[in-house]
Amino acid sequence: MIPDFEVTILGNTSSIPVHGRNHTSQVIRFGQELLLLDCGEGTQMQLRKYKIKSSRISHIFISHLHGDHYLGLIGLLSSYNLAKRTKEITIYGPQGLDEIITTNFRWSNTKLGYPLNFIQTNPDGNHVLMEDGLFSVSSFPLKHRLPTTGFLISEKPGPRNLIKTKLEENPISLDAIKSLRNGIDFQESDGRLIKVSEYAYPQPALRKYAFCSDTIFDPDLKKYILKVDLLYHESTFLTADENRAAETFHSTGAQAAKIASISHVKSLLLGHFSSRYVQLDEMLSEAADVFPNCIISEEGQTYPIIPAHE
Amino acid sequence: MIPDFEVTILGNTSSIPVHGRNHTSQVIRFGQELLLLDCGEGTQMQLRKYKIKSSRISHIFISHLHGDHYLGLIGLLSSYNLAKRTKEITIYGPQGLDEIITTNFRWSNTKLGYPLNFIQTNPDGNHVLMEDGLFSVSSFPLKHRLPTTGFLISEKPGPRNLIKTKLEENPISLDAIKSLRNGIDFQESDGRLIKVSEYAYPQPALRKYAFCSDTIFDPDLKKYILKVDLLYHESTFLTADENRAAETFHSTGAQAAKIASISHVKSLLLGHFSSRYVQLDEMLSEAADVFPNCIISEEGQTYPIIPAHE
Repeated sequence: MIPDFEVTILGNTSSIPVHGRNHTSQVIRFGQELLLLDCGEGTQMQLRKYKIKSSRISHIFISHLHGDHYLGLIGLLSSYNLAKRTKEITIYGPQGLDEIITTNFRWSNTKLGYPLNFIQTNPDGNHVLMEDGLFSVSSFPLKHRLPTTGFLISEKPGPRNLIKTKLEENPISLDAIKSLRNGIDFQESDGRLIKVSEYAYPQPALRKYAFCSDTIFDPDLKKYILKVDLLYHESTFLTADENRAAETFHSTGAQAAKIASISHVKSLLLGHFSSRYVQLDEMLSEAADVFPNCIISEEGQTYPIIPAHE
Repeated sequence: MIPDFEVTILGNTSSIPVHGRNHTSQVIRFGQELLLLDCGEGTQMQLRKYKIKSSRISHIFISHLHGDHYLGLIGLLSSYNLAKRTKEITIYGPQGLDEIITTNFRWSNTKLGYPLNFIQTNPDGNHVLMEDGLFSVSSFPLKHRLPTTGFLISEKPGPRNLIKTKLEENPISLDAIKSLRNGIDFQESDGRLIKVSEYAYPQPALRKYAFCSDTIFDPDLKKYILKVDLLYHESTFLTADENRAAETFHSTGAQAAKIASISHVKSLLLGHFSSRYVQLDEMLSEAADVFPNCIISEEGQTYPIIPAHE
């Protein structure tokens, strides 16, 4: 049975929170693990509104230090403390976020009852930030007005499932079985080469989700997000406001769709909409013209990362 | 015609924002002027929800640096900037708030398009913070775990209304009229003493509102809030949790009522309720037993400060 892998949108607006839309934050569920990507103002209220067990979040990833992506962090960490949390939290974010956290907690004289780690992200190149038995999270560079990273969540290969009938017909040693499960061919003491390709079912496709919070149109992104199953890409503006997008280092919906297309992703999730647009139909249609398999992210909605072979 | 003087509650919860209740923030309207008292996370959303013209706020008062009283400030100031505000803002708050603001804006590389002033409050004694033609705002000390001040908004006397029939019967010089309007007796060049008490109507009662955000039960407060028309006093706990109130430097509803009673205030508004209480009926009844003229503050509700003679 493959573990659930899905993303729940807590906020889909840029700049000023209007039209009932909130600032950027998303929850990734991978099996039993919850990860938080960005944490705009009000994230703790959104987590509660959508009945997400936020106590299970132990890893928080912040893409950059514009307020709409991190201003809910101190409140969330404070509420964990008031709720007597003892479980460790690790925050991954840009240089400066640690100073912001410690400045707030120093003046409020807050002593956290849980360990808080900070791991500074590197806005150049891609870097593995954490690994779990099931998945890894890595950062990759986005081009924005501040040092900014996207995040890629990649499923890791699990143990290989062996073909029972094949094992009955051609028994092998326990050492060989162990090796095949890890995906490695094995040579028996009698010289026989036992091949994974003969004894194991094909590996199911490994799922990938990429989060591109704020970025100018950047075809170089392709190398980091190639063939992901679900790409979240900001689409702050309509094509009519393309110049404004370039000036502010943001993208249009059509540009997000172009990135999805050249990166051969399976599906595209649009978000980070400018407050100037009340309705988003035009945003969707401009993007869908370029890359049909795209959707407008909706707050409170959960989107599964569907393996490519389904 | 007397100017409107009223308070709108944007948040009435302490610690963790639950049960649909938000962190502390209130808007004072005095005539055309809007003041913001405290600014918990989500205040900008609450201002929008309750259709308050927040662009008219130019003075923001922060009582202390616990997160539930100020974590919405950076977001609000950022949104003003995104909305191209040019009008000056002055923030009154404890030592450290300026460092928190500058640390956030330094890392987000934010250049405000409007002048932002910071005036550090003094948690000892009472101090006039600002004066307007119509009212003044002063701070007074609260006893809490951090340096904390309450705020008193006091209506200032306007020009005196003179009695027309009296002026017709006993005409006086223009200089005398000017002096009487300012509430000062005047001696005419012929030696006559023209008395305010004879020529002017009695001054209408001057309205006062006091805001006590977070405080342990403190009868010394009486000297700062004596006879205010409306007292907002925190009431975090029920009497059953009185020990917890003392430990955390908070008050119970009954203690807030006791302060209202000994201070001879006209009405009491309760708020800052602990997340442990879903219903607040018991809070109200415990307080009303001590001071009947009290109400549970409700988010989005506006409470007029009613002159004592009405």
